[in-house]
Amino acid sequence: MSKLLINADMGESFGPWVMGLDEHVMPHVDLANVACGFHASDPHVIRKTVRLAKQYGVKVGAHPSYPDLVGFGRRSIACSPDEVEDLVLYQVGALAGICQAEGTRVHYIKPHGALYNDMIRDLNLFEAVVKAVRDFDASLPLMTMATCDTSREENIASRYGVTLWFEAFADRAYDANGRLVSRSVPGAVHEDARTIVDQAVRIAKGEALTAIDGSEIVLAANTLCVHGDNNESIAAIQSIREAIKALP
Amino acid sequence: MSKLLINADMGESFGPWVMGLDEHVMPHVDLANVACGFHASDPHVIRKTVRLAKQYGVKVGAHPSYPDLVGFGRRSIACSPDEVEDLVLYQVGALAGICQAEGTRVHYIKPHGALYNDMIRDLNLFEAVVKAVRDFDASLPLMTMATCDTSREENIASRYGVTLWFEAFADRAYDANGRLVSRSVPGAVHEDARTIVDQAVRIAKGEALTAIDGSEIVLAANTLCVHGDNNESIAAIQSIREAIKALP
Amino acid sequence: MSKLLINADMGESFGPWVMGLDEHVMPHVDLANVACGFHASDPHVIRKTVRLAKQYGVKVGAHPSYPDLVGFGRRSIACSPDEVEDLVLYQVGALAGICQAEGTRVHYIKPHGALYNDMIRDLNLFEAVVKAVRDFDASLPLMTMATCDTSREENIASRYGVTLWFEAFADRAYDANGRLVSRSVPGAVHEDARTIVDQAVRIAKGEALTAIDGSEIVLAANTLCVHGDNNESIAAIQSIREAIKALP
Amino acid sequence: MSKLLINADMGESFGPWVMGLDEHVMPHVDLANVACGFHASDPHVIRKTVRLAKQYGVKVGAHPSYPDLVGFGRRSIACSPDEVEDLVLYQVGALAGICQAEGTRVHYIKPHGALYNDMIRDLNLFEAVVKAVRDFDASLPLMTMATCDTSREENIASRYGVTLWFEAFADRAYDANGRLVSRSVPGAVHEDARTIVDQAVRIAKGEALTAIDGSEIVLAANTLCVHGDNNESIAAIQSIREAIKALP
Repeated sequence: MSKLLINADMGESFGPWVMGLDEHVMPHVDLANVACGFHASDPHVIRKTVRLAKQYGVKVGAHPSYPDLVGFGRRSIACSPDEVEDLVLYQVGALAGICQAEGTRVHYIKPHGALYNDMIRDLNLFEAVVKAVRDFDASLPLMTMATCDTSREENIASRYGVTLWFEAFADRAYDANGRLVSRSVPGAVHEDARTIVDQAVRIAKGEALTAIDGSEIVLAANTLCVHGDNNESIAAIQSIREAIKALP
Repeated sequence: MSKLLINADMGESFGPWVMGLDEHVMPHVDLANVACGFHASDPHVIRKTVRLAKQYGVKVGAHPSYPDLVGFGRRSIACSPDEVEDLVLYQVGALAGICQAEGTRVHYIKPHGALYNDMIRDLNLFEAVVKAVRDFDASLPLMTMATCDTSREENIASRYGVTLWFEAFADRAYDANGRLVSRSVPGAVHEDARTIVDQAVRIAKGEALTAIDGSEIVLAANTLCVHGDNNESIAAIQSIREAIKALP
Repeated sequence: MSKLLINADMGESFGPWVMGLDEHVMPHVDLANVACGFHASDPHVIRKTVRLAKQYGVKVGAHPSYPDLVGFGRRSIACSPDEVEDLVLYQVGALAGICQAEGTRVHYIKPHGALYNDMIRDLNLFEAVVKAVRDFDASLPLMTMATCDTSREENIASRYGVTLWFEAFADRAYDANGRLVSRSVPGAVHEDARTIVDQAVRIAKGEALTAIDGSEIVLAANTLCVHGDNNESIAAIQSIREAIKALP
Repeated sequence: MSKLLINADMGESFGPWVMGLDEHVMPHVDLANVACGFHASDPHVIRKTVRLAKQYGVKVGAHPSYPDLVGFGRRSIACSPDEVEDLVLYQVGALAGICQAEGTRVHYIKPHGALYNDMIRDLNLFEAVVKAVRDFDASLPLMTMATCDTSREENIASRYGVTLWFEAFADRAYDANGRLVSRSVPGAVHEDARTIVDQAVRIAKGEALTAIDGSEIVLAANTLCVHGDNNESIAAIQSIREAIKALP
């Protein structure tokens, strides 16, 4: 993985409810994080999303979540590490079954929402997710947040023989530790298209970013997370992609 | 498959609620139909059940259902064939993911409850299930009901290259077409242990059974479905197994 | 109830997923059929919808459904009459609890989707719904379909002391029995605004409609069902309302 | 409320899964905390439980929970106070609807499991529950834990005009603050029948208990929580009841 890959959440519709512009985003990304039915998606939506990914040569990743449809997986649930391990396996397997039916496979795993945040805060949960990945298929990378110091996560992952993919964000401000500034803080989210593309390019080149306190930080990232909720954000994805492709 | 295999539903607990005596039944069966979370079971229960099956060398089968926990999958839901296809795939995949983590695999597929009955009545649903099996892994057998004439099911299955396993019942009376007599009819369920073992042996030997109207029917069965809800029924399973093993 | 009241389905969002333009439709209707959490809505959406109804002086009706979020309550589930009775009570109560908190109340009950259709086809289910209404509050009307002959439904309702409200449709063609022509038949859905308003006015005045076979039918309707999914349909609701108001 | 009332959790079955010995416990309690469908119970189970309570003259209380069937409501979910308020209202209403159908009503509200514990730890959640009670029916008592200092909870409740009922436990050891000793600590759970009845009587008489550190604490309790999972615990409930009744 030398190039910075672009990933986006996909398959977030549920039953009669539509969310996201998957058909417009899919052509512009490398990796599709597909919801597995616990925070969004259902068997039919998953199948359609996997087909769409395959059509555009996009790699499918499992996007498992706490079981919380009504809260869209954004609320922490006090699951034990064992519970997390099993619910990740269940969801990855369900997606893998549909991938298999469509002649493709799960390429990586990226926990969703509160589970993603919780596993960074609580290394017991991180280990539970790593164990689930190892038990399912140790060759699959686990996607987690790029920060200034990821040594603890790397230690755990290497103990289980699991590869980590680190993801960064082009449209979010970072603090001095390489953690995302909370959305409640002014300046936490970049709105300006040029700023966003510039941050993406810096991340792709491994150059330093300016943290919100003015310090310089370097994030070693394999992939960039983007969102395509409207025409403007889809245009931003395209700009980012072209800028990255243009790099030597 | 020359011997008549014994199958039983397993993994029917859910969250804090326990159902079934899996630990006492598992030692005596060949095939475990494991609930996949739509009518019973959850990721943790599935994992425990798969481990138990592996410990006793029992083959794990997927037991997918309509999505109906509160109704235990016993109520027909007017799903389209496409919906059935996708929800079978999702459930088989989820179970397969956990099997993979436990170093085993799904060996066959047996729809549960209302879905099992509906697919026999509605060949469009039967075809949907066959397509799901074919799309997931065409080498996996699909378990369905043995009746006097299974030619229509066999035609569909062979069109998709899927093998059928036919199952019969030792404790239920049959009508002249080899269909189960409804439980509401007196005599529909055999209570006497000797009658049950005798019917199991006849099925195993390919001998005729006496239908409820006195006619003779022959069922070509690969497997026998048993239930182990209490000590008495577990004893019946043991008797059946010994009687079948003793056959030349 | 002398005037023809206008009813519309409301509160059909769920968790993060938005459906419907409730804020734009509410000002133009008399009755809001509020989803109760089994096919759509959640406690938060219900509360917002009840507040909105109260703000516009719109009467809240309970819109109970089979338990089927992913299928939006559009798929029949083979529930027993007892099950239907209890699940209607549960949903009506849940909505009533939130109404009580907002200083209003449930004014009527209209089953949703497949349950609405099934209760017309199966009088045992109709009776189950009537019993639920009677048991909850016999003074609440039950909304059902206006057809040419509603004597069977009226007999059941009067036996339990429950009032029926009959609803008709301005944008759907009827057959000679006063039943809706299936959407799969050409001409089943009126697209032309003038035709729709004209049909609404005829229903309001108790005048005959021309059925799809050319025969004339009269529907005794208390209320008209409308849908407001886009600007065009909201304009149609406004036109219908003005036309009905203008009647002597 | 001068006498110490005995309360127990009821209606904890779900669909085909049975939990608890409701029929054996109901005759011996004053208050039945009825699950409302979010951690246990379903419309049919609720109805049966309400009928049983009515038959024995037992007052029905609502036992609302976080939405977590598989976790039985024992896992904290990071719901906002607004979400808690609405989900309590929904559940109380649902139970109230079924009570109304059975000619009885909800008499009090006692949050379940993790929600019960969380509201004691987080006064914002406590206030949310109090607001839900006030909005539904300010005359209904809210049951919460008796501790040595309940002034903060009482301040919130009195601000909203809601009455609190404090509950104590006969079979659990307390710390010096009147909080339950964690089950992981040796001696946290009393096993000896005499000790349990003695603690119940002391609570009923307002006498001091000896905390686990040897200090003396007094709990002002309105009600005692009991569990009836087996014959032994049901016998304990009976002994407690007789001992309390025998008090002057």
